[in-house]
Amino acid sequence: MKIHVTLRFLLASTLALILGLAAAAQHPTDGATPYAPQLVTELRRLQQAAMASDYAYDQVAHLCNNIGPRLSGSAQAAQAVEYVAGELRRLGLDVQLERVMVPHWVRGVETGELVEFKGQAPKTTQKIVLTALGGSVATPPEGVTAEVVVVNDFDELRAMGRERVAGKIVLYNARFDKQLAAQGFSFDAYVQAVAYRGTGASEAARLGAVAALVRSVGSADYRLPHTGSLRYLDDAPRIPAGAVTAEDADLMAYLAAQGRLRMRLTLTPQTLPDAESANVIADIKGSEHPEQVVIVSGHLDSWDLGTGAIDDASGVAVAMQTANLIRQLKLKPKRTIRIVAWMNEENGLAGGRAYAKDFAAQLTNHLAAIECDSGPGHPTGISAHAGNAAIEMLRPLAQILQSYGAGILRQASTPQGADITPLDTAGVLTFAPLQDTRKYFDYHHTAADTLDKVNPRELAENAAVIAALAYTIASLPEPLPR
Amino acid sequence: MKIHVTLRFLLASTLALILGLAAAAQHPTDGATPYAPQLVTELRRLQQAAMASDYAYDQVAHLCNNIGPRLSGSAQAAQAVEYVAGELRRLGLDVQLERVMVPHWVRGVETGELVEFKGQAPKTTQKIVLTALGGSVATPPEGVTAEVVVVNDFDELRAMGRERVAGKIVLYNARFDKQLAAQGFSFDAYVQAVAYRGTGASEAARLGAVAALVRSVGSADYRLPHTGSLRYLDDAPRIPAGAVTAEDADLMAYLAAQGRLRMRLTLTPQTLPDAESANVIADIKGSEHPEQVVIVSGHLDSWDLGTGAIDDASGVAVAMQTANLIRQLKLKPKRTIRIVAWMNEENGLAGGRAYAKDFAAQLTNHLAAIECDSGPGHPTGISAHAGNAAIEMLRPLAQILQSYGAGILRQASTPQGADITPLDTAGVLTFAPLQDTRKYFDYHHTAADTLDKVNPRELAENAAVIAALAYTIASLPEPLPR
Repeated sequence: MKIHVTLRFLLASTLALILGLAAAAQHPTDGATPYAPQLVTELRRLQQAAMASDYAYDQVAHLCNNIGPRLSGSAQAAQAVEYVAGELRRLGLDVQLERVMVPHWVRGVETGELVEFKGQAPKTTQKIVLTALGGSVATPPEGVTAEVVVVNDFDELRAMGRERVAGKIVLYNARFDKQLAAQGFSFDAYVQAVAYRGTGASEAARLGAVAALVRSVGSADYRLPHTGSLRYLDDAPRIPAGAVTAEDADLMAYLAAQGRLRMRLTLTPQTLPDAESANVIADIKGSEHPEQVVIVSGHLDSWDLGTGAIDDASGVAVAMQTANLIRQLKLKPKRTIRIVAWMNEENGLAGGRAYAKDFAAQLTNHLAAIECDSGPGHPTGISAHAGNAAIEMLRPLAQILQSYGAGILRQASTPQGADITPLDTAGVLTFAPLQDTRKYFDYHHTAADTLDKVNPRELAENAAVIAALAYTIASLPEPLPR
Repeated sequence: MKIHVTLRFLLASTLALILGLAAAAQHPTDGATPYAPQLVTELRRLQQAAMASDYAYDQVAHLCNNIGPRLSGSAQAAQAVEYVAGELRRLGLDVQLERVMVPHWVRGVETGELVEFKGQAPKTTQKIVLTALGGSVATPPEGVTAEVVVVNDFDELRAMGRERVAGKIVLYNARFDKQLAAQGFSFDAYVQAVAYRGTGASEAARLGAVAALVRSVGSADYRLPHTGSLRYLDDAPRIPAGAVTAEDADLMAYLAAQGRLRMRLTLTPQTLPDAESANVIADIKGSEHPEQVVIVSGHLDSWDLGTGAIDDASGVAVAMQTANLIRQLKLKPKRTIRIVAWMNEENGLAGGRAYAKDFAAQLTNHLAAIECDSGPGHPTGISAHAGNAAIEMLRPLAQILQSYGAGILRQASTPQGADITPLDTAGVLTFAPLQDTRKYFDYHHTAADTLDKVNPRELAENAAVIAALAYTIASLPEPLPR
């Protein structure tokens, strides 16, 4: 274990170094706007203070261990809002709670068992490890018992047609591309596989299926089901939907290839009336341009299987640490740094949407929104959905961050961060850390998303990068151009 | 993922090569007893046939997927006995079922939740992922609710004394030494940590505890509980006992350090009357000395959380493949090769004990017993609990196996294989493959012990080594000396 961790670390560090040097080589210092010596000094102090502080890790620990899973509408989500608001008040920030109505879906019983398959002796069975997808409707309390049809993709499903699908349970056995993820393209692998989780239930229901199952999206092989939201399409019946583990998908595909395979599936989640919740918004007021805002954020809600350490207590903690460091070092940003802990990223994006609506009149003065929502892996730089002029203004920052192996400044072609995408649409520049996410989908949306998955040093590195980015945007003589 | 697998493979191969060369260097061919050319040819044919065959993998797949978990006394265990006996008859072996009475323990509900801890808001809680230890008595159906005390070892427990332990739930938070396991000493790490699973409940009960929990023994961090047998001591009350995941042990230790921690624990396993089961015994009769026996074996029962692919369908499959290859190649061993699929290795060793008793009169003619029960990892050689003379007679075999990187011949100081230890006690030489077991305790006794954990090529390598070992012992001119 140790050997591999060390090797990975070396590989990641080497990769970061190479890429960082390449970035530096492409953009020599000659062309960079120099920062004022005071700003450079302040950025160095921020970085050093971030690396010396346990504050971010302590926040993740409290959110995960003392509070727990924080699904929208839950008592824990409410407690998390209260805790983060209180903590940011204690740091001296101006805190407001922005009211957000959120879905309130509650997981119930979730069991599966194979009740008929070839080679099966009387009374034997196989349990299927599975979990309901967020938002799923329920089966009857006694479950639904039906034949299973296994398909690898939507084309195979459609080729089967209604006569072979009606009355059955459809299993989408689309594999997460582990090789792609291991090469650093874990989000590409995720996007490929997650399509079936999203609309698989509706596509199957259109052909008369009674339930849908997806192979869990993720890179680990520890029989862990991976939850996440589904999206029912308006023109299809709503059928229950769950995710089986990769191992159970393999088992079912193996047996279905031998003959008729039937299972009993019981899912009893409930969708309760929408609940009142909140985005936590906390300001360090700008000394010169308080009306100009730089958002630093993560999302406070999580899925309910684990305790949401990497998704996304880490992001919230990095945002809170940004405030804490600025207070601790008594820095005075010219513009307002606004910490936001978003509610309901996981199953509705109600928080991000509400903000874009409630603050619509002020968005022309929002210079940038940063969200950390890809876990706490080692940062290698910054990804920016911004124009060339803004990118050039941030090059000296990238050179400073290079000392932490985080010197890449990537100009992204799409908005950064789900909660801040509505702001991006309104013209706000959006930012996220660039990170090592090769292990992210080992744990994402599973019961194993817990505190021990957060490396304190790497979390501190993320705080160092994000605090420096926010402070730079809030302190440069000129605002970043839109 | 791929990168690490490849690196590990290279490391393992290199290590095996270095060690193998070292072994070869220590024991030059000059001193080795040469084998008859016909035997050498037959051994090469066995190896080539093993590497070209899917038979062993197909057996693991059938046992795991078509039959499933095979806990002693279960319908699946009975089905497995029937299947293996039928398959070995189909291969033309003389098959007998040796009746064995086995424990019949059945897992029930198993839930845990923290009901009081510091920082807890009204109505919030934390679920604890856990599983009952094999043989545990039950809590009342509504569970037991009590304060948790966390200790790192028996010394800390005893130092607390009855007044701090009575009425409480004891959590043993002893960590599995991952570094030791990664260095190749996974069984040493296992033995260190498993002591608390064995007698932790009784030690806690002596001080008045109402239940005991252990930190799961194992090297993975995917929130998987690790089951296994406990052993109630005669002089202590029997209290319910379970294993929490490493993550949950961390959580409970974190919260207990902050203040009073209480949990509700519900475990409802049942111990039914002992059930009738069987060892499957199947002979390829020796052509010259049919009374002289070489046993090749694995155990047919498994724990109930996974499907027992690495523990120990793989071992049974390697034994079955030994018979299959000898039949396929129409080889005629001089001595009897006896395939045994043991029953009840996991929670009683009833099968191994019964055999040593039922066959006591014939054991002086048992030349060797081989058991594969450490998973299907790449074999690097053979471990032998045998005297110097026997070791010398096997050196030429080791040189032949070197072509597969399996040339180490280790003289062990202890019996090899739990089921065959009673035979060892009766003077029978015992053998096991030497293997790469660094990943073994990632999956052992968990729900993730499933077919996909078996690498078909590595399984074939094990079959090649074991078939060659068994055939050599059964074919040498002289019997291996005791």
